[in-house]
Amino acid sequence: MMHLLTMTDLSNEDILNILNDAKNYKKQHGWTADRKLFVANLFFEPSTRTKCSFEVAERKLGLEVLHVDEATSSVQKGETLYDTVRTLQSIGTNAVVIRHPKDQYFKELVGKVNIPILNAGDGCGHHPTQSLLDLLTIHEEFCRFEGLTISIIGDIRHSRVARSNAEVLTRLGANVYFSAPSVWQDEKTPYGMYIDIDEAIEISDVVMLLRIQHERHIFKTDTTDYLTSFGLTKEREKRMKAHAIIMHPAPVNRGVEIDGELVECERSRIFQQMENGVFVRMAVLKRALYKENERG
Amino acid sequence: MMHLLTMTDLSNEDILNILNDAKNYKKQHGWTADRKLFVANLFFEPSTRTKCSFEVAERKLGLEVLHVDEATSSVQKGETLYDTVRTLQSIGTNAVVIRHPKDQYFKELVGKVNIPILNAGDGCGHHPTQSLLDLLTIHEEFCRFEGLTISIIGDIRHSRVARSNAEVLTRLGANVYFSAPSVWQDEKTPYGMYIDIDEAIEISDVVMLLRIQHERHIFKTDTTDYLTSFGLTKEREKRMKAHAIIMHPAPVNRGVEIDGELVECERSRIFQQMENGVFVRMAVLKRALYKENERG
Amino acid sequence: MMHLLTMTDLSNEDILNILNDAKNYKKQHGWTADRKLFVANLFFEPSTRTKCSFEVAERKLGLEVLHVDEATSSVQKGETLYDTVRTLQSIGTNAVVIRHPKDQYFKELVGKVNIPILNAGDGCGHHPTQSLLDLLTIHEEFCRFEGLTISIIGDIRHSRVARSNAEVLTRLGANVYFSAPSVWQDEKTPYGMYIDIDEAIEISDVVMLLRIQHERHIFKTDTTDYLTSFGLTKEREKRMKAHAIIMHPAPVNRGVEIDGELVECERSRIFQQMENGVFVRMAVLKRALYKENERG
Repeated sequence: MMHLLTMTDLSNEDILNILNDAKNYKKQHGWTADRKLFVANLFFEPSTRTKCSFEVAERKLGLEVLHVDEATSSVQKGETLYDTVRTLQSIGTNAVVIRHPKDQYFKELVGKVNIPILNAGDGCGHHPTQSLLDLLTIHEEFCRFEGLTISIIGDIRHSRVARSNAEVLTRLGANVYFSAPSVWQDEKTPYGMYIDIDEAIEISDVVMLLRIQHERHIFKTDTTDYLTSFGLTKEREKRMKAHAIIMHPAPVNRGVEIDGELVECERSRIFQQMENGVFVRMAVLKRALYKENERG
Repeated sequence: MMHLLTMTDLSNEDILNILNDAKNYKKQHGWTADRKLFVANLFFEPSTRTKCSFEVAERKLGLEVLHVDEATSSVQKGETLYDTVRTLQSIGTNAVVIRHPKDQYFKELVGKVNIPILNAGDGCGHHPTQSLLDLLTIHEEFCRFEGLTISIIGDIRHSRVARSNAEVLTRLGANVYFSAPSVWQDEKTPYGMYIDIDEAIEISDVVMLLRIQHERHIFKTDTTDYLTSFGLTKEREKRMKAHAIIMHPAPVNRGVEIDGELVECERSRIFQQMENGVFVRMAVLKRALYKENERG
Repeated sequence: MMHLLTMTDLSNEDILNILNDAKNYKKQHGWTADRKLFVANLFFEPSTRTKCSFEVAERKLGLEVLHVDEATSSVQKGETLYDTVRTLQSIGTNAVVIRHPKDQYFKELVGKVNIPILNAGDGCGHHPTQSLLDLLTIHEEFCRFEGLTISIIGDIRHSRVARSNAEVLTRLGANVYFSAPSVWQDEKTPYGMYIDIDEAIEISDVVMLLRIQHERHIFKTDTTDYLTSFGLTKEREKRMKAHAIIMHPAPVNRGVEIDGELVECERSRIFQQMENGVFVRMAVLKRALYKENERG
């Protein structure tokens, strides 16, 4: 069963295969479905970007897409996630994409349902397709990970992506640094040292900003001074290395994590990341489904 | 106009034709659309299962699917159901699937709109595709209805399906019994005698459990003792006839109507019912649309 | 970039071309997509009719449709409309249909995003596809606009359509009159004189009723006497010119703007307007996309 649950589950070889498939899809090559295969998108949290990106990927692969939104689902009737997914399997769904506020929601599914699960984000935990699109964007730029210096800056503690990116980039040979206000530092992250933002900016090949996840914070954060203290100002951008790039998982809080004018500057790969999201999702859907298609 | 409104409207011959078509669809035979035909799914109550099941059926038939959810519909602007459906007809919809909290909502439509209506559940009244999938599941198991003993157990009063199943199973030659707490018995049901659950369990070929419809009850029911009093416990399951099967319309309240461990036991046909739901819906959609397709 | 923003932006020649294409689509002729083109429908206000009509148009053209509803979108996370649309562009959307409560929401997009925007209604401002379907309905009836007398009756002040219809009908050679309770008259409209409703009824070739937009009024309006004072009663209908027709953008408040029995009377073109909506939307989608398709 070719689930996609966490980056940790993927070997370096798996990752490079996925990136390779994604690059082929970007050049309009690769497997597409030649019979009716159904994918259900279960989103228990709002997300235009991830949901639409998966949907475009699914449609480009010629898959049939089902939407199950929390608001209209039987989950309201107290049904367990297992029963929802098992139902989708019974009615003929071939794979399921899930975003859920609960950390590791997939633990109650794996080994029990008989269709691949693609994790589109769980709680504050994992978001492997976001990591993969980040990797694709970096690899397109530098054709390697080995020896790159990458700083991850901002709300580390609440970021699904920060921890898994740090783990996987380290494993792929990059040097990872973190920079964050003390309240948002995460003691449990074994990869990457915390350094000052101004140092991070100057030594990095990739400056990876994180979104302030207001919706995950118990107390609202005063972001008035954030840009100056921990954001990418125009002044800081000028001190970046000549070839260094800016990344952000979006949606961007303009003027908070980054000066609004830098969002589409020459160094920014923010919209390219979104574009790449479609191609890595095509690659992981292929990975989950192409054997199913053959069996058909 | 080939509406599907209630089981009572269908003759025994109609029913057997639908089951026959459904069995063919299950073997991947049967009519599919060869031009663009639009079906609109109007759901005024949440229901993952029924909505997704209809959608998979529609897509497998090659139909174009439109979704109209209450939350985003002009019904919020005070439009009548008739005007909504008449609008869908005007913009080119060829059939409409409706779930609505009002009993017999379809009475204001029949004879006035010019497209077939498929009832996906009205109030506490009818839910013909649920009945048809129950019939298909029973017929697959026993190849007949004549002489079977079938017990319907639980919240009879609030069940869309209990009454129409009792009527149609009696008509097809089965012996139907009910078992329910006194508050949930329904005096108005002319088919089926009320008997004790422990007797019902022992004499039945089919034990058909009903869902406790919390969302339809005015007062919340205390379900703590329900499993012991009126649910299918592991102890009761052991006293069932050797070949007898368990059915439930789902979603299941695990540990209430049925012990959680029995949901996927060998006798259970609960997930097979869901699977069959897709094929009976294909059959009734075909019944509603294939002439339309020819006219095309 | 073939945006469709306001009727004012369209020349008379543009309009006649669109109507001509729409008539061809109605006869099942015209361009359809021969590769995967994605259209996103962004609806920040509920609207069954307009959304479904666009969707049917899109599907008939063979386009891939993405839905972005406010309730499930990242706009909840404070994202700007520009960033939402820019994201949709990045993930491969080829055109975007937007309905938004803010007047001229499109001003922050034009010249900045690189995909065509089709305005499906902005605030109390514009709703060009509604105007175009009105024009198509009139042109089908009279084969001309020159010299026709057209009365627009009702809530002029809050109507997206009243002002743009008045402008464009005047420009195409028709004589436009308004009739409205004094509180709903709009001083700023340079086209059309205000006259008494009973005079309007008698001199018009087209009686164009407007919907009372309760949802846009700050204070709820007492509509008890509206039908008698400013609505189309059966008595008024009898005094219309022999060949004159009745139009209404729908959804109709039956018994308020028009007597319920007149909604589908012989003079009424209300449901034909809805039908025509699909064909004008096909025409404007073609206008936005067929070059894109060629480039593909």
